[in-house]
Order: sequence, then structure tokens, then C-alpha cells
Amino acid sequence: MNATPKHPFTAAPVAVTTGAIAGSRKVHVPAPGRPDIAVPFREIALSEGSGEGPFRVYDTSGPYTDPAVAIDLKTGLPQVRRAWVDGRTVERIEARAVKPEDNGNVSPEKLVPACPAERPVLAGLSGKPITQYEFARAGIITEEMIYVAHRENLGRAAALDGAKARRADGEDFGAAIPDFVTPEFVRQEIARGRAIIPANINHTELEPTIIGRNFLVKINANIGNSAVTSTADEEVEKLVWAIRWGADTVMDLSTGRNIHNIRSWILRNAPVPIGTVPIYQALEKVDGDPARLDWEVFKDTLIEQAEQGVDYFTIHAGVRLAYVPLTADRVTGIVSRGGSIMARWCLSHHKESFLYERFDEICDIMRKYDVSFSLGDGLRPGSIADANDAAQFAELETLGELTKVAWDKGCQVMIEGPGHVPMHKIKENMDKQLRECGEAPFYTLGPLTTDIAPGYDHITSAIGAAMIGWFGTAMLCYVTPKEHLGLPNRDDVKVGVITYKIAAHAADLAKGHPAAKLRDDALSRARFDFRWQDQFNLSLDPDTACAYHDETLPKDAHKVAHFCSMCGPKFCSMKITQDLRAEVRASQAPVDAQAGMAQMSEAFRAAGSQIYVKT
Amino acid sequence: MNATPKHPFTAAPVAVTTGAIAGSRKVHVPAPGRPDIAVPFREIALSEGSGEGPFRVYDTSGPYTDPAVAIDLKTGLPQVRRAWVDGRTVERIEARAVKPEDNGNVSPEKLVPACPAERPVLAGLSGKPITQYEFARAGIITEEMIYVAHRENLGRAAALDGAKARRADGEDFGAAIPDFVTPEFVRQEIARGRAIIPANINHTELEPTIIGRNFLVKINANIGNSAVTSTADEEVEKLVWAIRWGADTVMDLSTGRNIHNIRSWILRNAPVPIGTVPIYQALEKVDGDPARLDWEVFKDTLIEQAEQGVDYFTIHAGVRLAYVPLTADRVTGIVSRGGSIMARWCLSHHKESFLYERFDEICDIMRKYDVSFSLGDGLRPGSIADANDAAQFAELETLGELTKVAWDKGCQVMIEGPGHVPMHKIKENMDKQLRECGEAPFYTLGPLTTDIAPGYDHITSAIGAAMIGWFGTAMLCYVTPKEHLGLPNRDDVKVGVITYKIAAHAADLAKGHPAAKLRDDALSRARFDFRWQDQFNLSLDPDTACAYHDETLPKDAHKVAHFCSMCGPKFCSMKITQDLRAEVRASQAPVDAQAGMAQMSEAFRAAGSQIYVKT
Repeated sequence: MNATPKHPFTAAPVAVTTGAIAGSRKVHVPAPGRPDIAVPFREIALSEGSGEGPFRVYDTSGPYTDPAVAIDLKTGLPQVRRAWVDGRTVERIEARAVKPEDNGNVSPEKLVPACPAERPVLAGLSGKPITQYEFARAGIITEEMIYVAHRENLGRAAALDGAKARRADGEDFGAAIPDFVTPEFVRQEIARGRAIIPANINHTELEPTIIGRNFLVKINANIGNSAVTSTADEEVEKLVWAIRWGADTVMDLSTGRNIHNIRSWILRNAPVPIGTVPIYQALEKVDGDPARLDWEVFKDTLIEQAEQGVDYFTIHAGVRLAYVPLTADRVTGIVSRGGSIMARWCLSHHKESFLYERFDEICDIMRKYDVSFSLGDGLRPGSIADANDAAQFAELETLGELTKVAWDKGCQVMIEGPGHVPMHKIKENMDKQLRECGEAPFYTLGPLTTDIAPGYDHITSAIGAAMIGWFGTAMLCYVTPKEHLGLPNRDDVKVGVITYKIAAHAADLAKGHPAAKLRDDALSRARFDFRWQDQFNLSLDPDTACAYHDETLPKDAHKVAHFCSMCGPKFCSMKITQDLRAEVRASQAPVDAQAGMAQMSEAFRAAGSQIYVKT
Repeated sequence: MNATPKHPFTAAPVAVTTGAIAGSRKVHVPAPGRPDIAVPFREIALSEGSGEGPFRVYDTSGPYTDPAVAIDLKTGLPQVRRAWVDGRTVERIEARAVKPEDNGNVSPEKLVPACPAERPVLAGLSGKPITQYEFARAGIITEEMIYVAHRENLGRAAALDGAKARRADGEDFGAAIPDFVTPEFVRQEIARGRAIIPANINHTELEPTIIGRNFLVKINANIGNSAVTSTADEEVEKLVWAIRWGADTVMDLSTGRNIHNIRSWILRNAPVPIGTVPIYQALEKVDGDPARLDWEVFKDTLIEQAEQGVDYFTIHAGVRLAYVPLTADRVTGIVSRGGSIMARWCLSHHKESFLYERFDEICDIMRKYDVSFSLGDGLRPGSIADANDAAQFAELETLGELTKVAWDKGCQVMIEGPGHVPMHKIKENMDKQLRECGEAPFYTLGPLTTDIAPGYDHITSAIGAAMIGWFGTAMLCYVTPKEHLGLPNRDDVKVGVITYKIAAHAADLAKGHPAAKLRDDALSRARFDFRWQDQFNLSLDPDTACAYHDETLPKDAHKVAHFCSMCGPKFCSMKITQDLRAEVRASQAPVDAQAGMAQMSEAFRAAGSQIYVKT
């Protein structure tokens, strides 16, 4: 079913895209020894003649692709984590009352209703572990850790059986990728700050995922309205659409009106971690004037969003007063929205940033709900000219300092990174981040490797993203074709997500992630065997692959044809070579022995002159 | 004017896309001291308020974007090189008569007429230099060398004036990129085999270009019909369309009927070097049966195409009999069309490849017309699983051996490369190619960095292409979204070309090419100044950038608005920061001096609380 919103701007969202992805079905597989912890995967059925069983892939799409689940946006998704969280030392607190400014003081006739799904609001207690980091440090393995271990292991058990698929030839630049992921390994990685599971205790609908350099590279998709365009309905659909194609987390960057209520629809219906930038909403509350921001309005916004269940907050606490002048001679100044807001605040008051000065208090709030930090790079370069400059690296050093503070306070932390960086300056970013921030997960936007292609910045940035993912970035923030030009629509979101799945997977392959290559190999076998439907179904986007093929060869018979329109039947190299196998193998007799040549030639012709005979 | 072909399959092509690219005009600039050698560039006009003059960019589009030139496909393009070639020691020879099999024995009613443009057929003489390599070795600087030197220098003179733009921070992996390109430098590079100017003496319409690791990275676009689809008209339009968006060379990979006559239209109307794979046409002449190929039919095809003016030939002479068995256990066998044809011939006859055995004679033919070698990688990997294997590298070593033979024979040579290669195995390809082939230019297809995204292989391959271009590849062969799925149409060609312009430019930036960054900087300044129209016009694809912007903000007033729909007016970081300049500079007084803080704050508010005040 494709959603085609028809109702007015202020209506509640009613319908989203559901149904299985072509050629596949949802399965739930219990973690070893824990039948109560069922992890979702997607199984792609291969054609009968292939001799291969269903191929299992990582699945971020949530219940929307499960025909067994009836989706009702008003009641929200099933609460996977309800029992886990309820079993911990948490207290139920009185929910903060919604204020008119939470929705931008929108007039009643323009108010989008909140999602009616009821959830208790929980908070952690002092002195008791509540965050995944605290549990890990205390030696406790949580259900979330068990869940992500099983989720990450996809294919590794099989790969370990056959020694061939082991990671033999990756270059991991000093990462510590295990052959097999155990819950205990997950715990260790979280305890040393090298990985996080963003999982607010008030986001019980979450299917947990792990972000860290020793795990599969993840991707984030941004959604969110702006004051200029888009509705609640469109935003919920963008969420569902983004995770359908593989977004591991989604950031809601809304800045217009109704954002509190739109966020309630998003959170109650999100099986992936949701991130936000609280300063955006805080600014709305002071009518868009950065100078009027203060700690109280910011703090109130943190609590508002934490109670709703936001899993990670971008906090631009590294934009210090002293760094703002370092941007004065840049070609593109400050391009981070949060960074520019805080720079203006600092200059306006000529004071140190309240985010930096109140960082301890921010930690205390975020810890209570286990909201993870995403320490924002407010001074990231917005052009090739500004890459790796003094402003950017000064901020990164401060983020390293803040990382240690957040860990001491019991919080989970990741670090945001650039931006626009030419290829030869990418690795320096990764190396410095690992050094300054004690291997806390790096979460980068691109980077874009040139500025000259607006309209194609998903591509300029995928080049940089694949490289920095290989070097060690744990999560890649997508860039859509509309970057720099406008708000992405649903199609742009899909192109951005698929492009970043490519970058992340290319990075996994290059790092030598065990079993990452299995999908490439399965698809390549299908390609060589002319199993067109299997090739489509194993791809990141079966619909597009099939549609492109069918533009010139739409008939069903062509789905088993030993050629495509690219080369036509006489010139397909795979056709020419596919049937040669036995002959080639026969010819492995010494080829320099001239005596046997005529005989070999005769045998080849007798066998029908096919290069590879299918065995 | 957009061409919309309406006439039947067999008609001659009549119309192609013409007209200037948005916001720019064609200029011709004489090479220093040579008013007779006028090199085309494209000048992008910037808006009056920018304070910047027109921005000059490299221009591959030929006379089609020049309103001063009346295009008539029947008479062909102006002959830029006519006088140069006529002034050399060449003989006019009797043209080989066209044979029915040259057009696939097509029946008269299905015959596409040949292009009626008349050109004498020329050939070089023995003992006299005719190829650019021979001239270079003899210490002679040709007009082509002067032309390409001036063409490459784009922006370097200006960059040299201001020391700032000098290549300060590239990583060139041992290349020898000069600050300024002189004709003598070009000659030296060609003489040592490190660069080529593909320029058949019978292709006088050519605007010469240079391919080598110390010059700007070039891109190739493939066109060509197959037996399944497409017409002469479509192919000529694809040529014109591909060069409009930046293709430096075009390969005609046609394999259906009428290919001799279609090629005549392409060559007479091509301002860029045209490459072919002669074995494709040779195979058509023996009804598609590789076993029936022989030296005579191949030789005849070489002469046929050389006389027409093809600038470079892919020759798969490295596919030796002994290497075919090395492919037996591959996941995707042999994926090069030429490679699979030759493998089948070798096995069928159980003989060494006639291309390898007759390589001397092939050199002698190609030298006579200065057709450059593109030594084909017939055993390139077709999947991640097969990358960098014994078959691939055995062939590469043979290509190194053949390079030296071709040089001894006076020929220009480049080397084709993979294919499908994960990121961590890309550099090994480049390093081995440089070593084995004496720095002869590398010309790679992608490489694709994962197999799992059919429909998006322009992106999977752009990642690899940017990296290998950085490492030293001289020309990148594009991949379109239709790769593996079907024949690309006009839209696919454009997406492929733009994607590869991105990869090539990202590589130029990373290598530290002098002046490469000027365009990024100009566009970034336009972006920061909200000169939307300048931003579009400076981009690789102004039409798409503008269309994307206008989807949400179509009004003319929005072209000067200080925001776009992505963030809306209140949240544009560039808006917030753009007016801060003076304040930031004022604030460069020591910020730790608490005494001055209140005063600074007051001054900032008094000045209107803008972060950067435009200076």
C-alpha cells in the first residue's frame, strides 16, 4: 500500500507505507538461550533452481513490513522494551504538562493533535544504573545488549562454519572487530565508551541497534518539517519510508509549528532510535531570537523531549566563545544551524556558551532517561576551503573533553563530524577524533568531497562517507539530492538512504566485517546464473532494479533470458562464458604442451563450443 | 533545442541538442604565441553584485554549445586539425571499400545511410614520425600538444598570481603535477609514455585532450546500440548529450547492424576522441561465432575503423590461453565482452590468442593512423569475490609487456582496469599498474565497491572511481544507473557523466591539482552570499540544481532570498552567520579578558546583533 495523503495540513497522520519488500518476508529469531528476545530479520527467497536457501539480511523496517501486524498510528507500535524497562529501577513520574510554546504557540485551528497512544513517563533514580553505559560498567548485560549482539551476528555463524567467508582481507585501521559478537563483547564495548545503544527508557517501541566502530556501519536519515513546507502526515511517512529502505536511526529536525505533537506521532511509531537537536525547539520558544535563549528554556526543552522518548540529542556544547572568531575568515562561516545559533548567543552576550558551562547539568538530565549524547560539530566546515581548519579542530578537542565528563556522569556519547572535506583530508578527521574522544563512536555528515555539484550531493558525500566509514566512523548521516537546495521529499529520502546503505556496506566490506561479503557473493552468483529475479530481490532496491530492467525487456520470459538489452543476446559476456566451466576445468591440463592442443580443441568443439559448461 | 527523434529506425540523424549551457557562453582563447590555435572554454557569468568576473571552466561540449556555429550533421563539424595534419608527412590513400558485412549484411531497406561528409583518407609513412609519441620522442612539439597545454592550464595563471590558491595540501602519491603546464612538459610526458593524446590523423574534427596522471582526470562515456534496441539517431544524440555534460572521450560500443554507417555519423560529428572495441564488429562479420574469428577479419576491421578516424582501440591482447583456466573458480567468470570472446577463441582452437601473437602487426597498423592503444582488461573482476585475483593480475603483467612493445613500435598506449573491487583492494590495482606498465595512463571502469546495488551502480562505482583517480588513474570510464540491467537512455547517460565528473573533480582536488579548488571556492562563496543563480550556474548541472530549488520556492524573489525550504528563514545557518563578519573580527580582542565582556556585548547589540556584518 502506498500512502497518498489527501487530508488537510492539520490532520493527524492516518496511513503509511506498509507491506513486505519485494521478494522477502519478515522473520523473528530468538537470541540464543533467550526465547523472549526475538530479533527481526528479512529473508529473501531465492529461486528454486538456485540450490540456495533464503538469504537473511539486517532489517530496520520495523512492524510496517510485517503483514502479521496491524498498523494503527494512534495506538503506536508494539512495546518491545516494555517489560525490560519496567523490570529496572525506575520511577514513574508526573509528565511535564504540554505548554503552548511547545507547539510554537500555534492557533487552535492550526494545531495538529498529539498521538493519543498512552505511555507512562519513567525516569531513573540516582545511585542506580539506568543507562546502558552504567549497566555495562557495572558488569550487567541488558536485554538490549543481547538483542543487538544477535542482530549483528547475521550470517556470521554460517560464515564461521565455512572458513572461506572469514574476514581474510579487510583493512580495519586498528579496529577490534570480532569474528562473532557475544552479549559480553557488546557490554565491553559499551563500558569502554566505544559503542552506544541509543535507547531512551521512554521509547519502549524501539528495536535496539548498536553504534560503534567494531559493529556494522549504521546510517541516519533526517526528516522534519521547516516553517516553509511539509505536514505531520508527510513526516511520519518519511520516517516509515526511510526505515523501509534501511535507515538505522532517524533524526527529527523539525523547526516549524506543531513540533511537539508531530514528535509524539513519530516516537510512538518509531522502531528505530530517534534523535533531535533540542536547541531548534528552544529557539522556537523564544521567537527565533538566539540572544533570548537561556538555560531555563533549554533545560525545559530537554526534559520535554526526554519524557517523550527521544533517544539521542545533538548538543552543540563545543561551540565556545573563543572559537567563534576562528571562523571569521572562512569561505562559508558557520554552517551548522545549532552552531550558528550558539555563536550568535555567545557574541550577543559576550559570554561562554551556557551549553558548555551547564554541561554537568545537561548530563544529569540525559542520564535520567538514558538519552545519548550526540556532541554536535557546530563549527564543521561548510566548504572544501574550510576543511580541517583551526575552528573545526578546536571544537573537536573540546568535544573530547566533554566526552570524558559525560562518561563520568554515566551517559552514552557519540561525536558528530564534518561536513565538506576533500578526500586527502578525510583520514586526519578520523584519526584526530579517535585520539581526542577516546574512540567514542564518530557520526559524520558525508563528508562531501567537492562543492561543485548541488543536486548530486548524495553522491559527492557518499564518496567521503564510504571512506570515513572504512576508516572507523560508526554511523553515517545521509545527504539527499536536495542538500543545499530545499527540503527533501519522499523520493529524495529513498535515494539518500539507498546511497548511504551503499557507502556503509562498502565500508563494512573494506573493514573486513565477517560475513559482509556474503550478500555480494549471493547477488553475483545470481547475476552470473541469469537469475534476474534473485538479482533484483537481493539488491538494496528491488523495485528500481526490476523497473530499470523492464524498461527495455518487460516480458516474463526475459527474467530467465541469458542476456539483457545492454549487450543483447550475442554479446553478453556472461552468456558466452557461463557454460564454459567444465571445458575450462578440463583445460587445466598443462597448456604449454603443444601435443595436446589439437585434441583439446576437438573436445571443446565436440562439447558444443561453450566456454563454461554448467556443472 | 531538444531533439525529439520522430523519424523511422533507418533514417539518418537530423537533430541534436544544441544551445549554451545555462548561464554560460563559449569562448575561444588562443594559445600563448599561437593565434591560430584557439582553445574552447566555457565562461560562467556571475551576478553583478558578486564583484567577481566570469568564471572559466573546461569545455568538452564542442561547437554544439556555440550559437555562432550552424550544426549540420551531414557536413560534419569544422575540421580543427585539418591544416595541422595536412602539414605533416602523410599520404592520401585510396579508402578501403565498404563491404556489406561492415554493416552486418543488413538488407537494403534497413540500411542507415552513411554520413555524406567527405574527408580524404590519410596514412603515415614508414620512417617518418606520425604519432604523437613519435613526435614527442623526436623532440617535436605538435599543435595538439600546444592545444592541450593551454586547455589544461585553465585558471592556473590566475592561481599562480595569488600564491594562496597554489597546490598546498594535495596528496599526489608520487605524481609529478606541475604548477603550470607548458607544451614542452606535455611533450616530455608523452615521450615517456606517461600521457597520450588520442588523435587519429583521420579525425580532423577533434578538439584534442590529454590523458595522463599529471593532468586533469578525464572521464569516458560509453554509447552504442545493441541488437536489442536503439537507433542511429539516438546514438548521435547520446554523443552530443554526453559531451555537453562533460565526457572527455566517448566509446562507441555498438554491436548491432549498421555499425559502420552509424560510426561515420559519430566520427564526423565528434569533437572528442572516439574509442571502439574492434573485436565487436569483427564478431558481427563472422555471425557471432567467436571460433570463426581470425587474424584476417580482425585486421580488416582495424583498417576499416582506423580509416574512419577512430582515435583509440580497445585490444584484449592480454587474454592469453594460459590465463583462461585461472577464471574457472571465479564467482562471475569472465565479464568483459572482448575477454569472453577471446577466451572462447583460445579454447576453441586451443591456441594462443591471435591478438597476442600478432601484436607487432597490430601496432604497425595503429601507428600508421595514430590510433592509440587501450589495452583491454579482458579478465577484469566482475564481482567483489573475484577482485585482484590471479587471472586479473596475470593479464595485467602481460599488458605491461605489451606496453613496451607498442612504445617500441611508436604507438601511444593506455591500460584498462577493473571492474568490481572493494575499497581496501583498490590501491593495490593502481600501484601494480604503475609498476608493471611503466606509468602508462590507467583507464578504469569504476571500480564498483560493492555488488549489492544494481540500479545505483553509478554510485557504487563513483566511490571507487574517485579513489582510484586520486591514486593515479588518468581516465575514469563512467557507469550508468542501468549497468547490469539494460542499455542506458539519454537520462542515464547524463547521470553517469555528472556522477563521473564529480569523481574526477574530487580526485583532482585530492591530488592537489593547481586551481582545481577555484571552482569549489567560487561556488561556496555564491552559496554563502545567497547568490542562488550563481550557485546553480557554477554547478556541474545548473538545470537540475535550479529545478530542485524551484520545487518548493519557484518565485524569482526566492533566487535572492536568504534561505531555502530546507531550513526556512529562521533557521538558515548561513543567514544567521552571514552578517556577523565585522563583529567577529571586532571580537578578536582577547576573549578571556572579562573586563571587556559587557562592553563587547553592548557593542554587538548596538550593531543590530548580526553575527557577520558584511564588509
